[in-house]
Amino acid sequence: MVYADHAATTPLDRDAFEAMCPFLLEDYGNASQPYSFSIASRKALKQARMTVASCIKALPEEIYFTSGGTESDNWAVKGIMMGKKGSLITSQIEHHAVLHACNAMEGLGIQVECLPVDRNCVVQPRVLENRITQDTGLVSIMMVNNEVGSIQPIERLSRIAHENGAWFHTDAVQAVGHMEIDVNHLGIDMLSASAHKFNGPKGIGFLYVRKGTRIQPYADGGAQEAGLRAGTENVAAIVAMAVALKKNCDHMRENQIKMRKLEQILEDILRKEKINYIRNGNLGIPGNISLSIRGAEGEVLLHRLDLKKIYISTGSACNSRNTEISHVIKAMKVPEDYAEGTIRISFGTENTEEDAVEVARALVEIMNGTK
Amino acid sequence: MVYADHAATTPLDRDAFEAMCPFLLEDYGNASQPYSFSIASRKALKQARMTVASCIKALPEEIYFTSGGTESDNWAVKGIMMGKKGSLITSQIEHHAVLHACNAMEGLGIQVECLPVDRNCVVQPRVLENRITQDTGLVSIMMVNNEVGSIQPIERLSRIAHENGAWFHTDAVQAVGHMEIDVNHLGIDMLSASAHKFNGPKGIGFLYVRKGTRIQPYADGGAQEAGLRAGTENVAAIVAMAVALKKNCDHMRENQIKMRKLEQILEDILRKEKINYIRNGNLGIPGNISLSIRGAEGEVLLHRLDLKKIYISTGSACNSRNTEISHVIKAMKVPEDYAEGTIRISFGTENTEEDAVEVARALVEIMNGTK
Repeated sequence: MVYADHAATTPLDRDAFEAMCPFLLEDYGNASQPYSFSIASRKALKQARMTVASCIKALPEEIYFTSGGTESDNWAVKGIMMGKKGSLITSQIEHHAVLHACNAMEGLGIQVECLPVDRNCVVQPRVLENRITQDTGLVSIMMVNNEVGSIQPIERLSRIAHENGAWFHTDAVQAVGHMEIDVNHLGIDMLSASAHKFNGPKGIGFLYVRKGTRIQPYADGGAQEAGLRAGTENVAAIVAMAVALKKNCDHMRENQIKMRKLEQILEDILRKEKINYIRNGNLGIPGNISLSIRGAEGEVLLHRLDLKKIYISTGSACNSRNTEISHVIKAMKVPEDYAEGTIRISFGTENTEEDAVEVARALVEIMNGTK
Repeated sequence: MVYADHAATTPLDRDAFEAMCPFLLEDYGNASQPYSFSIASRKALKQARMTVASCIKALPEEIYFTSGGTESDNWAVKGIMMGKKGSLITSQIEHHAVLHACNAMEGLGIQVECLPVDRNCVVQPRVLENRITQDTGLVSIMMVNNEVGSIQPIERLSRIAHENGAWFHTDAVQAVGHMEIDVNHLGIDMLSASAHKFNGPKGIGFLYVRKGTRIQPYADGGAQEAGLRAGTENVAAIVAMAVALKKNCDHMRENQIKMRKLEQILEDILRKEKINYIRNGNLGIPGNISLSIRGAEGEVLLHRLDLKKIYISTGSACNSRNTEISHVIKAMKVPEDYAEGTIRISFGTENTEEDAVEVARALVEIMNGTK
């Protein structure tokens, strides 16, 4: 089989799995209990927080563990805007976790504006500059789009937000562990991440919240996570997330080079075989290849590849049962005769050059068969 | 060592651990992706939902997986009251996850009333009857108190709520897996549960929501959990939760008998040695023994027992770094000269009769040494 849907989820790193086992089996003590039996889990929690923080150049006390990217996004949007008046600005290409959280705020009286993108699926800073007002409480723009991999100009966007007195959040679920991130250099106030997108386990993630950001708690209850995110700490998953993230960050450049190589192998074959396609996005995050193939249907391609034990995606990363053209492809204005044939191939570190060849050859075979 | 703090967290059941491994290691496919590689995780998710539902006599489509009890409680309270007017009724002995979620609603204009309890830490139905009005949108009363184990008259409380047009939620985090629960017999609309309280993993739980209950989504985003709780499904943890819950339910009566036996062994020794204590609560959930010992200090007892490798709790289950008398012990009006000496011993299925003897003898030794 060739698993090439890493933007949807990644296999759990073996070291991360090994790191979580002791906290599942032996050191199960509640990390918030004061007795010595919980020292191991408390220490591991502290160490994991330091590791995660160092991977994005944050302070440990700026890392809040959550149940994943969706929770982090919901928290950032609602934690800033809940009970407030005014408006927030996001973009048309956000993940539904941000878009629908914004819609929920709209239902409570917040004005929501979704910025358009250019043909490469990039939010232009001048567009934000034109739309932002003194009423804007929050700007939330993703770091890397999940469907096409385009990287957004976060540094410039966050500067514009701050110049206008708004907080800046970025959904970095597709970026963390895959590209270098320095939260200070980028000047962002909040950043969402999800472990299972960088070879950590599902059900765990974090929200970076810069010191001084006035965010309300998301989950009320116990005093965990400095009183902002209650709930017994999921130490096993947190430890595994830290191990996976550090490993990805330690090997980032070689991983990126490898991903670019796989992209090139795949595209070389498609071009050589004269497949008529557009590569979407701005050649963004390495490994994420969104193709709109003329005359094809994304869902048909997905199922034909499935029969060959090749697993890729069409539409959104987290739920592609929907056969409609996705909101991202629509926002990019991909030409109609290409848009329906959109698929996303997302490679990961365990993929080989042979995998890239296999995916490309299978695509060619299917396309030639359906001509 | 003797771990006797199962109301704080339980060791992960070995079968539950074994059940989660394949979904961590091999069948890591995103359960919301349509290809064949995800069939295993989709099937497991469906099976787990059926298992969990059957354990509380619910329908599978009434089970919504969450990241744990705190999220479930927050969702129930906020999902019913957010954006509404009116009032909600809860009790003085709720877990902070409910109390603080209610406080958050108070900040948004909802009137919150906390019902008192009697000396046995039980909410009296007539008190609810007197306080409920046509303005009451929600009544949230826990099934079993986490600090003293008292079981609440849920059936009568939920009937009063419904007679007055209010929804009824119960935080059953300390009850699920430990006592028989039939959501239809009890007539409740929502029920919160947390896997790590019944030998499942941390970071996973569920909210039961009766069909027809008008609850808003908590986490907005993807279409998971019928569009009400977005986020990539944590299949490994969900599967483990189902295995642990079923095992606890299958052995419920024998577990309960064993827990009562351990309680009796412990109390027999304390009484024989003339330790001056009050047993708090209404002899509720088996295994949860809250003792207020005259002239003792809970925190000192905890640390002395810790030195003997005996792990128990004082104050609240989820964070006992606080040395103040807990809100529950205050609400029960435990006499002052006893209240400060409150500890909670909570036995679990792996505890032995020897463990109960060891805990009792250690307590006696410490108390006699401090006389």
